[in-house]
Amino acid sequence: MSRLADPVAAPLPLAITMGDPCGIGPEIVAAQWRSQPPHAVVVGSCAVMQRAAKALSAQGAPLLQVRQVASLLPNALAACVPGDIPVWEPPGLPPGLDDLPWGQVHAQAGLAAAVCVRQGAHAVQQGLARALVTAPLHKEALALAGEPFPGHTELLQALATPVGQPLVPVRMMLANEALRVVLVSIHVSLRDALAAVTLGNVLQTIGIAHDSLRRMGIQAPRIAVAGLNPHAGEGGLFGSEEIEVIGPAVAQARLAGMDASGPWAPDTVFMRARHAADKPGEFDVVVAMYHDQGLIPVKYLGVEEGVNVTLGLPFVRTSPDHGTAFDLAGTGRADPRSLQAACRMALALTAAGPG
Amino acid sequence: MSRLADPVAAPLPLAITMGDPCGIGPEIVAAQWRSQPPHAVVVGSCAVMQRAAKALSAQGAPLLQVRQVASLLPNALAACVPGDIPVWEPPGLPPGLDDLPWGQVHAQAGLAAAVCVRQGAHAVQQGLARALVTAPLHKEALALAGEPFPGHTELLQALATPVGQPLVPVRMMLANEALRVVLVSIHVSLRDALAAVTLGNVLQTIGIAHDSLRRMGIQAPRIAVAGLNPHAGEGGLFGSEEIEVIGPAVAQARLAGMDASGPWAPDTVFMRARHAADKPGEFDVVVAMYHDQGLIPVKYLGVEEGVNVTLGLPFVRTSPDHGTAFDLAGTGRADPRSLQAACRMALALTAAGPG
Repeated sequence: MSRLADPVAAPLPLAITMGDPCGIGPEIVAAQWRSQPPHAVVVGSCAVMQRAAKALSAQGAPLLQVRQVASLLPNALAACVPGDIPVWEPPGLPPGLDDLPWGQVHAQAGLAAAVCVRQGAHAVQQGLARALVTAPLHKEALALAGEPFPGHTELLQALATPVGQPLVPVRMMLANEALRVVLVSIHVSLRDALAAVTLGNVLQTIGIAHDSLRRMGIQAPRIAVAGLNPHAGEGGLFGSEEIEVIGPAVAQARLAGMDASGPWAPDTVFMRARHAADKPGEFDVVVAMYHDQGLIPVKYLGVEEGVNVTLGLPFVRTSPDHGTAFDLAGTGRADPRSLQAACRMALALTAAGPG
Repeated sequence: MSRLADPVAAPLPLAITMGDPCGIGPEIVAAQWRSQPPHAVVVGSCAVMQRAAKALSAQGAPLLQVRQVASLLPNALAACVPGDIPVWEPPGLPPGLDDLPWGQVHAQAGLAAAVCVRQGAHAVQQGLARALVTAPLHKEALALAGEPFPGHTELLQALATPVGQPLVPVRMMLANEALRVVLVSIHVSLRDALAAVTLGNVLQTIGIAHDSLRRMGIQAPRIAVAGLNPHAGEGGLFGSEEIEVIGPAVAQARLAGMDASGPWAPDTVFMRARHAADKPGEFDVVVAMYHDQGLIPVKYLGVEEGVNVTLGLPFVRTSPDHGTAFDLAGTGRADPRSLQAACRMALALTAAGPG
């Protein structure tokens, strides 16, 4: 069997975390090696990944081999047989993970998922991997393990923040083949989301979207900024945020050289931005004022290939836009397409450099 | 040439208003007679409709003939040559409408549009037409004409309310081939829309949606009720309206025998309700908590065939979901498909009886 090419010339691999061992994470990660193996290393447990490979083969596919690698250093990876799933077991993984029942919330599973995210992020920050792609974890298991962070985003935000400094500002981007949206706020009530529509937050969101799309190779991203109210307030008739907050933020972004426009009527801006084969979108990204404004259109056509990207981190992190799907775990039937799209997106976001 | 069938046996026609004479209304109305003439009468000005027919023929189509009918009584309609556009000129139309320039706001145009809506609605209420289909009017022209109503909905709501009584409750439904949504509130700021999410309003919206879909022949409409907050509040974690208001409204609707469910996570409920050839929707209609929550998904795939329906009136009224498009008026190039869909919807909504 052939070995990988010269490790010095080889590009850095993606680091893919296995996610919660009791969910569909390990299976959809293993499934990436079925047809066109990615240039990637799994951060996880070999035993868990072996169990996942077996679950996949129960559906009739050939059994994939799991190969432990000692580190993410190029010479360790070069020793791996092409087609096998290379797994790096980070320090701190609890034992017995492959004995945990599928589809159940378990503290050890939450702990293992968190360890993989932390160590995967460290590896990317140390320059050993080009980007971090995370399989789904379970928020309840994470909490049972004593983690103080509700999810990936907050954990990674804390990891990326120097001790004693204010948290680095991050934003969630959701993207599929047709649409990209970046959200001013995410997991707060709609009432609190209204309060988060400030000049500072909107301008910061536009700036983060701009910088991130430039990283993806779009030189002058066309950024549509949605209004907050119906018809973008109809000239102040229903709501003044467009006049007092969003419009000035767009103006400041333009002064700073960004191709931002708006505020646009929310009910048509996503339709206008949507890319289709017969109708290219008018914009490269839409800045949405709250969670559902952006997520309703992104998810409307189906969630199979949606990708979640955390913008603003000092490294690239993507993930599928679905959860652990405990009801499907262990069946080998979970759909791996969203994770596949997350890997493609991570490659695109790091195409211009090491991230 | 053959005459229409026995007027006694013939079903009632639709009444289609011409809309603002300076907009695309007359043209998209005339265009309905190009291939499969509807069983309908135009409520409008013969001269304006003649001008519209000429504008259409400038694009190469054969010139349609306009035929004035003296009334909406069956024997008057029976005298009309099939294929010609039958136009009833209601009392009160100002003269000289066909001299008004295309694409401009004009008080006489606003007055004419309002007269047609009023008289068309009377005709439907008198049992002379089965439903009212309205072409777009221009809100500014309406105001210039001294009309105290901002648009169709409010005008019709007032017409349908007995003198001295509180306004009849109406709701806007937007529908296309893939999705139907009914909105708790429409043209108010998002902040005011939050305040409108009361048990009474939500329950009334569910009830109006239920009754209207039954009229369309759906015996037990599956009504999905959207939440207000991200993830429908995640058990009260971000927002309590789902627990305090929306959930109880759904429960009361179920007690009253309606197949209502929810509150569902807003970012996936519209995707789940969407009908596609390969995936029938899980629900017949979604009750949306505010304007953009419902309109973003309805419009996301394009607005060519969206229909606006005013629910709660004692008669059926539909319209296209676009405006007067002054920039296109007179070119003969306006897309008549949304109005066509509005006619189909009016027929469907009156299929079970005279409305």
